[in-house]
Amino acid sequence: MILILNQNVSEELKNDLRKEVTSKGLKIHESQGEKTTIWGLVGDTTRIDEDQIGIHPAVSEVKRIQKPYKLASREMHPEDSVVEICGRKIGGGHFDVIAGPCSIETKEQIIEVANDVKNSGAGLLRGGAFKPRTSPYSFQGLHGQGLELLLEAKKATRLPIVTELMSTSHIELFGDVDVIQIGARNMQNFELLKEVGKLKTPILLKRGLANTLDELLMSAEYIMAGGNENVILCERGIRTFETSMRNTLDLSAIPMLKKKTHLPIVIDPSHAAGLRWMVEPLSLAAIAAGADGLMIEVHNNPEKALCDGAQSLTPADFDALMKKIQKSVEFFRELR
Amino acid sequence: MILILNQNVSEELKNDLRKEVTSKGLKIHESQGEKTTIWGLVGDTTRIDEDQIGIHPAVSEVKRIQKPYKLASREMHPEDSVVEICGRKIGGGHFDVIAGPCSIETKEQIIEVANDVKNSGAGLLRGGAFKPRTSPYSFQGLHGQGLELLLEAKKATRLPIVTELMSTSHIELFGDVDVIQIGARNMQNFELLKEVGKLKTPILLKRGLANTLDELLMSAEYIMAGGNENVILCERGIRTFETSMRNTLDLSAIPMLKKKTHLPIVIDPSHAAGLRWMVEPLSLAAIAAGADGLMIEVHNNPEKALCDGAQSLTPADFDALMKKIQKSVEFFRELR
Amino acid sequence: MILILNQNVSEELKNDLRKEVTSKGLKIHESQGEKTTIWGLVGDTTRIDEDQIGIHPAVSEVKRIQKPYKLASREMHPEDSVVEICGRKIGGGHFDVIAGPCSIETKEQIIEVANDVKNSGAGLLRGGAFKPRTSPYSFQGLHGQGLELLLEAKKATRLPIVTELMSTSHIELFGDVDVIQIGARNMQNFELLKEVGKLKTPILLKRGLANTLDELLMSAEYIMAGGNENVILCERGIRTFETSMRNTLDLSAIPMLKKKTHLPIVIDPSHAAGLRWMVEPLSLAAIAAGADGLMIEVHNNPEKALCDGAQSLTPADFDALMKKIQKSVEFFRELR
Amino acid sequence: MILILNQNVSEELKNDLRKEVTSKGLKIHESQGEKTTIWGLVGDTTRIDEDQIGIHPAVSEVKRIQKPYKLASREMHPEDSVVEICGRKIGGGHFDVIAGPCSIETKEQIIEVANDVKNSGAGLLRGGAFKPRTSPYSFQGLHGQGLELLLEAKKATRLPIVTELMSTSHIELFGDVDVIQIGARNMQNFELLKEVGKLKTPILLKRGLANTLDELLMSAEYIMAGGNENVILCERGIRTFETSMRNTLDLSAIPMLKKKTHLPIVIDPSHAAGLRWMVEPLSLAAIAAGADGLMIEVHNNPEKALCDGAQSLTPADFDALMKKIQKSVEFFRELR
Repeated sequence: MILILNQNVSEELKNDLRKEVTSKGLKIHESQGEKTTIWGLVGDTTRIDEDQIGIHPAVSEVKRIQKPYKLASREMHPEDSVVEICGRKIGGGHFDVIAGPCSIETKEQIIEVANDVKNSGAGLLRGGAFKPRTSPYSFQGLHGQGLELLLEAKKATRLPIVTELMSTSHIELFGDVDVIQIGARNMQNFELLKEVGKLKTPILLKRGLANTLDELLMSAEYIMAGGNENVILCERGIRTFETSMRNTLDLSAIPMLKKKTHLPIVIDPSHAAGLRWMVEPLSLAAIAAGADGLMIEVHNNPEKALCDGAQSLTPADFDALMKKIQKSVEFFRELR
Repeated sequence: MILILNQNVSEELKNDLRKEVTSKGLKIHESQGEKTTIWGLVGDTTRIDEDQIGIHPAVSEVKRIQKPYKLASREMHPEDSVVEICGRKIGGGHFDVIAGPCSIETKEQIIEVANDVKNSGAGLLRGGAFKPRTSPYSFQGLHGQGLELLLEAKKATRLPIVTELMSTSHIELFGDVDVIQIGARNMQNFELLKEVGKLKTPILLKRGLANTLDELLMSAEYIMAGGNENVILCERGIRTFETSMRNTLDLSAIPMLKKKTHLPIVIDPSHAAGLRWMVEPLSLAAIAAGADGLMIEVHNNPEKALCDGAQSLTPADFDALMKKIQKSVEFFRELR
Repeated sequence: MILILNQNVSEELKNDLRKEVTSKGLKIHESQGEKTTIWGLVGDTTRIDEDQIGIHPAVSEVKRIQKPYKLASREMHPEDSVVEICGRKIGGGHFDVIAGPCSIETKEQIIEVANDVKNSGAGLLRGGAFKPRTSPYSFQGLHGQGLELLLEAKKATRLPIVTELMSTSHIELFGDVDVIQIGARNMQNFELLKEVGKLKTPILLKRGLANTLDELLMSAEYIMAGGNENVILCERGIRTFETSMRNTLDLSAIPMLKKKTHLPIVIDPSHAAGLRWMVEPLSLAAIAAGADGLMIEVHNNPEKALCDGAQSLTPADFDALMKKIQKSVEFFRELR
Repeated sequence: MILILNQNVSEELKNDLRKEVTSKGLKIHESQGEKTTIWGLVGDTTRIDEDQIGIHPAVSEVKRIQKPYKLASREMHPEDSVVEICGRKIGGGHFDVIAGPCSIETKEQIIEVANDVKNSGAGLLRGGAFKPRTSPYSFQGLHGQGLELLLEAKKATRLPIVTELMSTSHIELFGDVDVIQIGARNMQNFELLKEVGKLKTPILLKRGLANTLDELLMSAEYIMAGGNENVILCERGIRTFETSMRNTLDLSAIPMLKKKTHLPIVIDPSHAAGLRWMVEPLSLAAIAAGADGLMIEVHNNPEKALCDGAQSLTPADFDALMKKIQKSVEFFRELR
């Protein structure tokens, strides 16, 4: 972090600032010019709040050089992280597909879809028991009963399961869940992040609709700082001015995150556009851009789905897509 | 809600759609043209998911006419709502100012600021005990101890208190809080909204950084559907491409919300821009646009604040601003 | 501008960089630390392209301190600029209202509206002869004939006129125009900016729908660098994710621009929201925030307007609004 | 277009509305319900302005069904358009790469780069003679002299050339240019669009930084309505809240545009992120998503480029990338 001091700052103010900075364990490297005094702060500046130090009466400008996250940063951990889930791997060259319905509706539904996606080659099963819905009048999920049905589908197919946790008060129900999803709307629900940071379960952390990549990594840092380093990042579309799709999938997030962090990155093309016919081109583009995995909604009867049918593939469509996904993964593995 | 059916749709599909629609208690008013069949759905269409019905094979287009919220809508409740807090009123012509520090730091600090803002004419005291911070390494608030200090300040000044609730698991600590704030990052933490919907305590619901006004009202609807109709809306800046301020304060939200809803609207100019010298012009503009209140950060020593000092006014600045606020409120009351 | 050099950079590369920097007339102030070498560049850094110098192999980071504009900056010109138009003044404490129809349609229309807005107290008359329309099939304005009608209205009322120039090829038609408007969609039509920079006519420069305030000032700088310092800035709403209004009026732009520049700032509440019932609250809020003027659409028969009727006030509505505007301007002049 | 009339609207108002609608050559299909009267307008509704008709006192709501563009729409022209440039084809299964420097600097530079990109397999040469720069103090291009150098490079390599036109006043200089580029900042410079609509030269139309896909197609419609149907669309990144890249490349624009229009779509990954190391993953992702071509910046000495060096590839990097591009195009041609 670089502090540019005000011209003609008094020694008293400089001393006060020096005390504040060194009290946080940082060293100061002063560069004294004719007019400008510049301080380079050396040490762990993640503990310094730029806005706060910027209003010290001795300070004219603050420029952060170091990233505000550590555990999530590529600098601290140059090798790709690989997250293991019941023997399956995501990251560091390992690619996998998470598939299943938006919400768990009945035992028949979830088991049928689970069998279908497994046969097509999906590595993990998704299904929502607690559903974040914009309207209080929309279907909110089957809650505990939904989790039980999902566990039955896991037993029937041996697919590890991925499902969303919306509140710290439900956490004890998630003991047998293989990957806990933190949804986009809860990306900055910091109390929830702290709680899942205490677990060992892998966390699929979705980027918020209007959150920067650095904020996504700060939320990952919350989980990792608590001791849980099994974090998978997920880009699912951001909010822009464009109205012809639900959200704008930010595929440049993939190479940028690969530069910033060692954590694996999964893309959710189903939620991004909200349109099933877009899932294929966006899935293939995600692979081409270097994604470590995909998360795709599949429903055995999309027209009658209780949630997000418009973006769900039928099992037959998913099967056709999986063949293209597998070929593409292989193609790009060789190309690079 | 209007459904435009596909041309040449079969009777079988139409019957299936008819069953689905009438099962939700809606009546169909069919308009049969040469080529196009249009259905007007009459009844409570808040229970219908546009995206879902839109993929029924009989449907070509869906157009929503009715708003997706009811309790929060101006149509259902033409009179302005007035929220009462320990005898003070916000809404329906009643204007008030909530002031205090970003976070509660010490007993001396909160009581000193509380006395100062009371003497300047603030009607409610704000102070954060649980702080949502982007970085896990930033100060997170004094938690329970902070709430106790805030209650002491309340006792000392008799100002009702406003403080943020971040998790359902802390809710029992908030029994003596007069207004519970739901922060921008939790605007769509639906489990939290459901919980505060069960209380009678007034709720200050902040608009999310990238949430539309309709989404804000849907979140208010969550609280009201639970039985708590004491909701105050708060605009605090939205995320845009502009980089010279932290966020872009959306003052047109005031007249637009006044049209859409009967709930009171408070503006937070401190968080919007993140710059203390902008608080005055934005406060006066908010009053001119019709706001029912303001929420302003005040700190007795902004340079040493543990949080958001850059946007906090000193008590002296706040005192000068309050005089202008009071004159402006009076001026616009007469002008309209 | 500050350059942070790469660690262990060779003397050869440093010399190459030194030559590049000094060839632009800048002095280097070097601060040599244990690990980091920092160069402060002193002089007119507006001629340096940050992105370009940032890829020099000796450079690790570039931080701009100085603004990339000079003539438009408050630093270079601490006093408010006042733009004079036929004896009327805008800026530096002088407030005025520009009013009139979106487009000039007939002689009767423009003269009737001109008389109406003059009687209500408007200081300048607006009217479009060349209309930027999203669709090629929409009414495009009366062009040269429209300008003639506008000049007749000027003769009839002695109101100075404001009208939009869309192309360098029309510029000779604008000789008698008092204020030339550059529309939002042409804010970065740099060839047009250069041409109006050669004139002496005052320019009303509208902010682009997705342009930052610094970009707006860079476009003003284009005009001023050509020799025309009579620039009035205009904020007319920016593009965000919000869908209930056409655009989001950014009123915090007023205090921020006042800080950055000495140029006057006018607000256009009609185009911002696109809704006539919003013009009043947004106009009053703009005055409260410190605007130097307003630009308001008025039409004698909004329902039959060929363009933008939805946002136009009737002359009677405008008359009522002008009374409130005048009182508000006076009130805030005394308050500050 | 559907008009929902106000309840209890008078016959007089209905007649007035009927006259307005039928005067534009549209037929009305009335659906009379118990409470609601709905009019379906049949015919060419591109000539109707939604906002304008929406304020007619008889109208409660307007819903557009038909697209506001015709010539550009897929409905009117179900087959993919193929644009031919000196024997090379883009669109309808034909893929090509446009490469070259941001700006033409010297004869040696442009001829060297032209030979390099030709040898690597590029089909067209790009180079800017007129440069749209945010700052008036940045290099603005060599203008007429630059065009001459570009034509020499064309002669030397026989590559067709692509270069940007910024003003109608330069148009006569562009007679030998093979593809005229309309830059992002001029996407809604409607006078320029009208002028290039009179030519036969293929137009590369770049999407504005904050323009929707429908607005891009309306701008294409301007060109096509003038008689020039040789339009190639180009996505080059949109402006969002994300700050770690210059712009956010919207790759979902590719499948969405393919649905809406028959025109070819080219992606510019160089300008999107502004970072050379992102060009490869974004290029491959664009191919995977179905792009008809790429536009890539190549410079023989990026560190000394007068413009956009940070995003330019060296000829060697470009050569390596072209091999991957060619393999990927082939792979996806077979996969689909």
